[in-house]
Amino acid sequence: MEYTKFMSDRVKTMKGSAIREMFKRMADPEIISLAGGNPAAELFPGEELSKIAGKILMTSPTLALQYGTTDGYPAMRECAKKRAEKVNSVTDDDAILIMTGANQGIDLTAKAILNKGDKIVVESPSFIGSLNAFRTYEAQLVGVTVEDDGMSMEGLEEVLKNDSSIKIIYTIPTFQNPTGTTMSLTKRERMVELASKYDVLILEDNPYGDLRFSGEELPTLKSLDKEGRVIYAGSFSKILSPGMRLGYLVAPKALAEKIEVLKQVNDVHTPMLTQLMCVEFMKKYNIDDYIAKNCELYGRKCECMVESMKKYFPEGKVKWVVPEGGIFLWCECPTITDITPIVDRCLEKKVAIVPGSNFAVDMNAPSNMFRLNYSSATLEKIEEGVKRLGEVLSEML
Amino acid sequence: MEYTKFMSDRVKTMKGSAIREMFKRMADPEIISLAGGNPAAELFPGEELSKIAGKILMTSPTLALQYGTTDGYPAMRECAKKRAEKVNSVTDDDAILIMTGANQGIDLTAKAILNKGDKIVVESPSFIGSLNAFRTYEAQLVGVTVEDDGMSMEGLEEVLKNDSSIKIIYTIPTFQNPTGTTMSLTKRERMVELASKYDVLILEDNPYGDLRFSGEELPTLKSLDKEGRVIYAGSFSKILSPGMRLGYLVAPKALAEKIEVLKQVNDVHTPMLTQLMCVEFMKKYNIDDYIAKNCELYGRKCECMVESMKKYFPEGKVKWVVPEGGIFLWCECPTITDITPIVDRCLEKKVAIVPGSNFAVDMNAPSNMFRLNYSSATLEKIEEGVKRLGEVLSEML
Repeated sequence: MEYTKFMSDRVKTMKGSAIREMFKRMADPEIISLAGGNPAAELFPGEELSKIAGKILMTSPTLALQYGTTDGYPAMRECAKKRAEKVNSVTDDDAILIMTGANQGIDLTAKAILNKGDKIVVESPSFIGSLNAFRTYEAQLVGVTVEDDGMSMEGLEEVLKNDSSIKIIYTIPTFQNPTGTTMSLTKRERMVELASKYDVLILEDNPYGDLRFSGEELPTLKSLDKEGRVIYAGSFSKILSPGMRLGYLVAPKALAEKIEVLKQVNDVHTPMLTQLMCVEFMKKYNIDDYIAKNCELYGRKCECMVESMKKYFPEGKVKWVVPEGGIFLWCECPTITDITPIVDRCLEKKVAIVPGSNFAVDMNAPSNMFRLNYSSATLEKIEEGVKRLGEVLSEML
Repeated sequence: MEYTKFMSDRVKTMKGSAIREMFKRMADPEIISLAGGNPAAELFPGEELSKIAGKILMTSPTLALQYGTTDGYPAMRECAKKRAEKVNSVTDDDAILIMTGANQGIDLTAKAILNKGDKIVVESPSFIGSLNAFRTYEAQLVGVTVEDDGMSMEGLEEVLKNDSSIKIIYTIPTFQNPTGTTMSLTKRERMVELASKYDVLILEDNPYGDLRFSGEELPTLKSLDKEGRVIYAGSFSKILSPGMRLGYLVAPKALAEKIEVLKQVNDVHTPMLTQLMCVEFMKKYNIDDYIAKNCELYGRKCECMVESMKKYFPEGKVKWVVPEGGIFLWCECPTITDITPIVDRCLEKKVAIVPGSNFAVDMNAPSNMFRLNYSSATLEKIEEGVKRLGEVLSEML
């Protein structure tokens, strides 16, 4: 049977994330992956969560196994609120919604805002999961260049000035995916100003903000916003566990109400057990201590990667900015236009990296950039992976 | 700030499920709820799942806490496949996708099929969660009456004959929500024939199919379909736990591929722990034994409700069909046009029921029907709740 005619326009040309597709090809255990976005598994609190889950199901089976409320289990909303309060990112005019991963928050926010053809400003490059979510609402993505200190504010104003139909800006200001860059304080203040001047909303995606291992903490856009223009998406994926799928939105009540209805028809509510586990974990342990351990590890891993790059990459042929936190490092090869043959050759040499085109607004344009992840592999694998990559780069640049 | 102008058309007039709103008003512990759709909590296997969860997190923390694949954990897909095979509802041309509750499967199927303005045939009345999901894609709902033996086939053909733009039929053929009715074999065969004749797809939602306590099992629409027109949505919510949010889709590969991409941008994947718990539960225990215990209990609860209705309802004023399974019972009051005052009076008398308008295609039209649930309350509460309801009906009919 021919199914194309039954498909909605939004999916007809849609492809999955090439990164997740790449994972399927990576069953080969000899491949060193610098491609994914997995947090370090070494530190997962398996034993602690094992005891917690066992106890919850033994003492409160009905609570853990029965239907819950769409906006989230109240104590879990309190936990999310605490995280948001830590970065001054929740006001009395906001509501908190627990999400089955922050990605759901991004998806449903887009669904609540974007009509077909509506325009959304995004960093170029940006997180493919969010870009693809926006694409499924047939929105037009308007890319603004990411500089070493975050989105270009000249570029942003240019875009906003010339198009009054733009509704919202999507940004990952801190340890951006894929570039690892962090928006400066000046630019943060400017972005909030511009949002006000041109009357648009901001969707601030902050999954990596807690993972700082150098430099100084910067305020979130949400904390700088006095008008209620910022919707803030937080996540427990990188500070507790991605497999638990726990994230949250802090959003002005009028918008949160609509997003809640969209969640109701999407997954009814986030699974109860994982919510209860997170609540108990935060009650019994200091999650900031756990995060600090992760930061320390990521700092070492990042340093190892950068040192290996200096050692193995052909001199002067690859440019990068050393991140102050997060899990990604972004590289540019100015002497070529298309990284694809290098990525393919890397897979033959059993190291996986992600070509920059995946994160572009125009995915078909060639890119001379690639993304590296340092959170997932061990220190030994990072060095070995970068060595293999360096060999390919030396051979092909 | 005024947010309406930022909202997409789809959410501007959207309201949440009145049923879930009603829950919020029901904090009063004296209220007996015959309103929800909760399965019986008495039988939840809390102790078994406690041991299982504890062991998984202790022995496989990385698997349980790290990112998983969008289509689902392979062993979980096997579990879903077994359930689908039990009702002959999976072929070699199908793929299985694990969903964070079957509702997500309905939502994302709609997203993959429906453009704005596209038409979808639904039973009238039908499950509000699905109807609202379709509404969020700005689809036009075309309602076809539900008779005592399921959707009217004359009504369906009339609609299909006169409108070649219809893409898909949504149906809950077994123990339908809200009517509790089951589509006869003749009608099932006819629906599959009509889908072929008029070249449309069928989305078969079967969350209650396992919960039969009387009468004979009937084949699913999916099992009768030889052309690959049926997308089948299954659920573990009513046979294991709704709070775990585990469902699945069986769909032709070409469509499943698109739905998988939509899930990727929605929640990336269903939480790992709950998937692993379900796999272990099905490995260690015979889930059909557990389901059988539920059916036996629901049969007794349904009987209790029906007997109480006979005893306490004003004679000849209320019509209903006794269901052969599932969790809902549907009542009509032919002498009135609007049940709202009765529902409100019931809440004063501390018993909650759901007015029929919630399940209608046109939610603003008055309804003289209401839905009762018998799975959730205890036998004592069912009798007491129906007694209170009977008093209101006697007073107001």
